[in-house]
Amino acid sequence: MILTVTLNTAVDLTYAVPALVPHSSHRVTEVTERPGGKGVNVARVLSALGHDTVVTGFAGGATGAQLRRLLGTLPHGPADALVPVAGNTRRTLAVVDRSTGDTTQLNEPGPHIGADEWAAFLRTYGDLLPGAEAVALCGSLPPGIHVGAYAELIRLARSAGVPVLLDTGGEPLRRGIAARPDLVKPNADELAKLTGAREPLRATRDARRRGAHSVVASLGADGLLAVTPDGIWRAAPPSAVRGNPTGAGDSAVAGLLSALAEGLGWHDRLTRAVALSTATVLAPAAGEFDRPAYEDLLTRVSVEQHAPAA
Amino acid sequence: MILTVTLNTAVDLTYAVPALVPHSSHRVTEVTERPGGKGVNVARVLSALGHDTVVTGFAGGATGAQLRRLLGTLPHGPADALVPVAGNTRRTLAVVDRSTGDTTQLNEPGPHIGADEWAAFLRTYGDLLPGAEAVALCGSLPPGIHVGAYAELIRLARSAGVPVLLDTGGEPLRRGIAARPDLVKPNADELAKLTGAREPLRATRDARRRGAHSVVASLGADGLLAVTPDGIWRAAPPSAVRGNPTGAGDSAVAGLLSALAEGLGWHDRLTRAVALSTATVLAPAAGEFDRPAYEDLLTRVSVEQHAPAA
Repeated sequence: MILTVTLNTAVDLTYAVPALVPHSSHRVTEVTERPGGKGVNVARVLSALGHDTVVTGFAGGATGAQLRRLLGTLPHGPADALVPVAGNTRRTLAVVDRSTGDTTQLNEPGPHIGADEWAAFLRTYGDLLPGAEAVALCGSLPPGIHVGAYAELIRLARSAGVPVLLDTGGEPLRRGIAARPDLVKPNADELAKLTGAREPLRATRDARRRGAHSVVASLGADGLLAVTPDGIWRAAPPSAVRGNPTGAGDSAVAGLLSALAEGLGWHDRLTRAVALSTATVLAPAAGEFDRPAYEDLLTRVSVEQHAPAA
Repeated sequence: MILTVTLNTAVDLTYAVPALVPHSSHRVTEVTERPGGKGVNVARVLSALGHDTVVTGFAGGATGAQLRRLLGTLPHGPADALVPVAGNTRRTLAVVDRSTGDTTQLNEPGPHIGADEWAAFLRTYGDLLPGAEAVALCGSLPPGIHVGAYAELIRLARSAGVPVLLDTGGEPLRRGIAARPDLVKPNADELAKLTGAREPLRATRDARRRGAHSVVASLGADGLLAVTPDGIWRAAPPSAVRGNPTGAGDSAVAGLLSALAEGLGWHDRLTRAVALSTATVLAPAAGEFDRPAYEDLLTRVSVEQHAPAA
């Protein structure tokens, strides 16, 4: 079983409008509603790949109930081990302007998590860890959770002998790296904020020196850069693609975890991550991946090793 | 009991953001959620005035369940006689830009109503009519409901001897007026669309000639213009007020119905309608009214009769 943790789960709403004009009234022409939060997205992709997957984190209020209903309707969906909270699970809203294709994002802050709710989560996490082949800790922290929360969860995973991946930003990333996770997957912005360095290789190496065993930086259309104990690798799609990049980073995390759980090495992990994230950009619906494109890309992603050891 | 009908109920969401910038990402700093749709707003105000009030219309899906929960938490709230439907009740979203105070509105279309659902509504409406002192038919029609729906509901109310008020626009207003409602309350835009006339008195008289017994036109800051069998009246607040006009029209409807149900004449109906709508503009929360301001305004609204009979 692969476990994904989403402390700030969401119901992801998408509104299509003919054109977004501030300070006017709009008729929404299309409404879609999906279970969301980065770890939930990762779990959806892992389930679609055939992995036994469990999601944990928090769900509360009417939006939390809706999140659980939506999770329950996914075919071969991940198992729901979300912990109830008193507050309301947040919504995120993407307003898609059909005239330009651009998206305007509005994210609710999420519920305040109390000390007893965090304690209940730690019990659930502790119960799930022994059965996990790998665990992914994903996304922002909701209000009320201490900034060292991911560091705490990483130490628990390491004590249980479970490989742990961290995908977050800001201070939770800085604290988390210091707890020595097996893998972190920052994007270029998160890396620059963490290290102060803009040059990807320098920033990725710097991030690794802060405590992560391996760092896989996602560089948008340029693919992935991995600095690992086994070497430095670059992986990229055969050509640039156009589409909706929403969820591409989460699909990369799913690719890395999927190959890790199957005992595959870096070449295969990076191939799978790039193929999945590229196939996600190509899918018309945000956060879905185009399966035929994924299977085709598996044979065409380029992976180059740049140095035998980091 | 006063009955209000809201065929396109809603959950009204309000998001505050520091500044709305299209094609960027926003952290929402404040989220409020209220039961909505014009007839629901009217019923909230009637209940707050102490009237026994019942809301009917449709509610479905997760948003419908949330609407009913929100209705149930109102103190002295209206009774819930909403009819279940398979589709999802719509949300409306008002995004308030804190830097300018301006609002951007995004309205979901609402669920498709099937023929059997419309038939179930007609049974509920028929059961409620005999106990009603007055009925208000408010707002837009959801997809699937025939454009003559309000005309049908007006004929049923008239057969039952219940005074009926219509507050809608476009073709449903045009068809509804022809069914001879006791009162319609269009705003200046709806009047102009209906009659082609921009001059308020001419347009209001024209609207009345189309079949309504009385027409009360809401003219924004200029107050109300009533063309009735008993004469023509103008009613206005003592001075222009600044604030949030959301719900002011619904409060005017509540004022008219409240005084009608108490057997009061046009002077009192219009006084109450202008005092309530002005006190709604003055309240900080959208759709609420400022009670001390309302009570003060009751003594200060000006009502002038312009002609003894229309």
